[in-house]
Amino acid sequence: MDKVNLAQKFELFTDYWSPKVIGEINNYDVKIVKVQGQFVWHKHDETDELFLVTSGRLGLQIREPSGGEERTIWLEPGEMAIVPHGMEHCPIAEVETHMVLLEPKGTVNTGDIQSDLTVHEVPHI
Amino acid sequence: MDKVNLAQKFELFTDYWSPKVIGEINNYDVKIVKVQGQFVWHKHDETDELFLVTSGRLGLQIREPSGGEERTIWLEPGEMAIVPHGMEHCPIAEVETHMVLLEPKGTVNTGDIQSDLTVHEVPHI
Repeated sequence: MDKVNLAQKFELFTDYWSPKVIGEINNYDVKIVKVQGQFVWHKHDETDELFLVTSGRLGLQIREPSGGEERTIWLEPGEMAIVPHGMEHCPIAEVETHMVLLEPKGTVNTGDIQSDLTVHEVPHI
Repeated sequence: MDKVNLAQKFELFTDYWSPKVIGEINNYDVKIVKVQGQFVWHKHDETDELFLVTSGRLGLQIREPSGGEERTIWLEPGEMAIVPHGMEHCPIAEVETHMVLLEPKGTVNTGDIQSDLTVHEVPHI
């Protein structure tokens, strides 16, 4: 059992939208990711997803499932949000943004959408 | 769906060793807690437990399950550790320390031990 220093882990890679596993809790992966620009709209029908921003600023564009109303929740460092399962969302970042993600093992980053940004094998770092 | 600002949530209470739920992801609770002093030795046979320190300094005293060797992992802000299920541990903090916890709903803070510090009803804030 070792500790994990988030800042040190973020120094190990530079690619965007490519999550890395930094810890495992039961059947969940704790991941970190660097992002900039816009991701793709998608949803995870089977799981909620936690986003915790540690630097930069993340826009979580979401569509309410009922009426489909679209809005953006901006997360600053030290802020988190949990996107419920089934809710369409699309992260966006105007500056390089670092965040911690939590989701069950096997959760694919682009959810129900196949995209050039889809990552099937998430490395442990 | 709303965002959660960790610092704002920590301003809502002052008691030590008394976790509060700030979010739910599937069947897991995201909790925050303020601690100072020493907790009690305990373990969770059925679940791993994540600790992420946001201020102060946490000592995670642990006993390796095999030989029972005891050591302390010190977590600074921005550092986390995941205590595996079945591992005896006892948090300690020399200064007021704030941290985020993740564990399945219903996980009791003192695990297999009944103590004055046992919290059965964890409030949402």
